[in-house]
Amino acid sequence: MAQKFHSTARKIVAIGRNYSEHAKELQNAIPKEPFFFLKPTSSFVRTRGNIEIPQGVVAHHEVELGVVIGETGRDISHNDALSHIAGYSLAIDMTARNIQDEIKKKGLPWSTLKGFDSFTPIGDFIPREKVFDPHQLGLWLKADDAIRQMGRTSDMIFRIPRLIQHVSSIMRLEEGDVLLTGTPSGVGPLIPGQTVSAGVTQGKEELDRLELKVVQRQGGYVYEADK
Amino acid sequence: MAQKFHSTARKIVAIGRNYSEHAKELQNAIPKEPFFFLKPTSSFVRTRGNIEIPQGVVAHHEVELGVVIGETGRDISHNDALSHIAGYSLAIDMTARNIQDEIKKKGLPWSTLKGFDSFTPIGDFIPREKVFDPHQLGLWLKADDAIRQMGRTSDMIFRIPRLIQHVSSIMRLEEGDVLLTGTPSGVGPLIPGQTVSAGVTQGKEELDRLELKVVQRQGGYVYEADK
Ligand SMILES: [Mg+2]
Ligand SMILES: [Mg+2]
Ligand SMILES: [Mg+2]
Repeated sequence: MAQKFHSTARKIVAIGRNYSEHAKELQNAIPKEPFFFLKPTSSFVRTRGNIEIPQGVVAHHEVELGVVIGETGRDISHNDALSHIAGYSLAIDMTARNIQDEIKKKGLPWSTLKGFDSFTPIGDFIPREKVFDPHQLGLWLKADDAIRQMGRTSDMIFRIPRLIQHVSSIMRLEEGDVLLTGTPSGVGPLIPGQTVSAGVTQGKEELDRLELKVVQRQGGYVYEADK
Repeated sequence: MAQKFHSTARKIVAIGRNYSEHAKELQNAIPKEPFFFLKPTSSFVRTRGNIEIPQGVVAHHEVELGVVIGETGRDISHNDALSHIAGYSLAIDMTARNIQDEIKKKGLPWSTLKGFDSFTPIGDFIPREKVFDPHQLGLWLKADDAIRQMGRTSDMIFRIPRLIQHVSSIMRLEEGDVLLTGTPSGVGPLIPGQTVSAGVTQGKEELDRLELKVVQRQGGYVYEADK
């Protein structure tokens, strides 16, 4: 079942500011405990699809390692956490950065700015057996031919067991749920006409790769900055 | 399928500040366009279940009319909106108000404060045929024997077609998704040992009723105010 998470997942839990270089590049403080937001599964888009940028939106890429939950659990202990993982998936947590800048000042929810259709490009299911250590993977992202992000999951501030322990102390994690573990530094805008590609590597092996076109969303919500 | 939304829903979209008396009671401005946040479906609890209050949390009740989506759609027009509705459901949008007060100041996401397990008591599926006009319903909520909320859906600032139009311009609405339409005034804390009951009425008829016990959550996340 968990390998079908693209169609069965009921929630995407995304961790913020989990790489210190990324927290710094956005002038954010390093968090004392993990924090997260929800993304709707309707925002999934598969490789070779389109990322649609809504009108008026400055959309940033954030390449991330996704963890796919296998066994449902609540109050999962640090020690038990890895046994609740079915596998992994490469993801891009697209973010409407200009909406975020406004919304943070107003203390409003993040759901719109993280939740647009196509704002979560997501790769294949990678069974956990294929991953020797999820904290020893490489993540990279390119816009056209320019490398934008090149990070290592060893740089996470809070590691996966701590993230699972934290989230499951608040909300039950269910089979097929996806946990996005935060992005390394190098985030930046994607604009219509560009192609974005991203990969997750284990040593010299590429475990998965995403490639999507960036297009202008036709119709839909139009963002106008607050005057 | 939509009548099985309790087990199939992939998202709960909850509208904030959609009744002016409620916006005022929390000293919030009346919004110029609808705004919303996501709740995880893992927060559903059925009638006769328990609402678990995490340690350190001041949890407020918000009785709301839920709309259950039937036909999946994107960029749903105001005119088409009602045809995408399969039915309705009575809900309580539980809110960790003291976490919210802190998080709003910090510009952080609302997902934790709205998303604890059992923070979305949810009623039966009410087929749309049973509801003559969703904007002519009564909503009430009691803590033990004391009436706390007593509102009318005719007082919504943004009506259901506008909410569906707005949300679906940002994120696709899918069969079984639940839209919570905001709460009338009278929100307040529920504490362990209390019983909460709520109802949705159409004229003199009660369409559904919820009744839950409020208990202290054992284990799990403990909220400590930022010092
Ligand atoms: Mg991210
Ligand atoms: Mg509410
Ligand atoms: Mg009932």
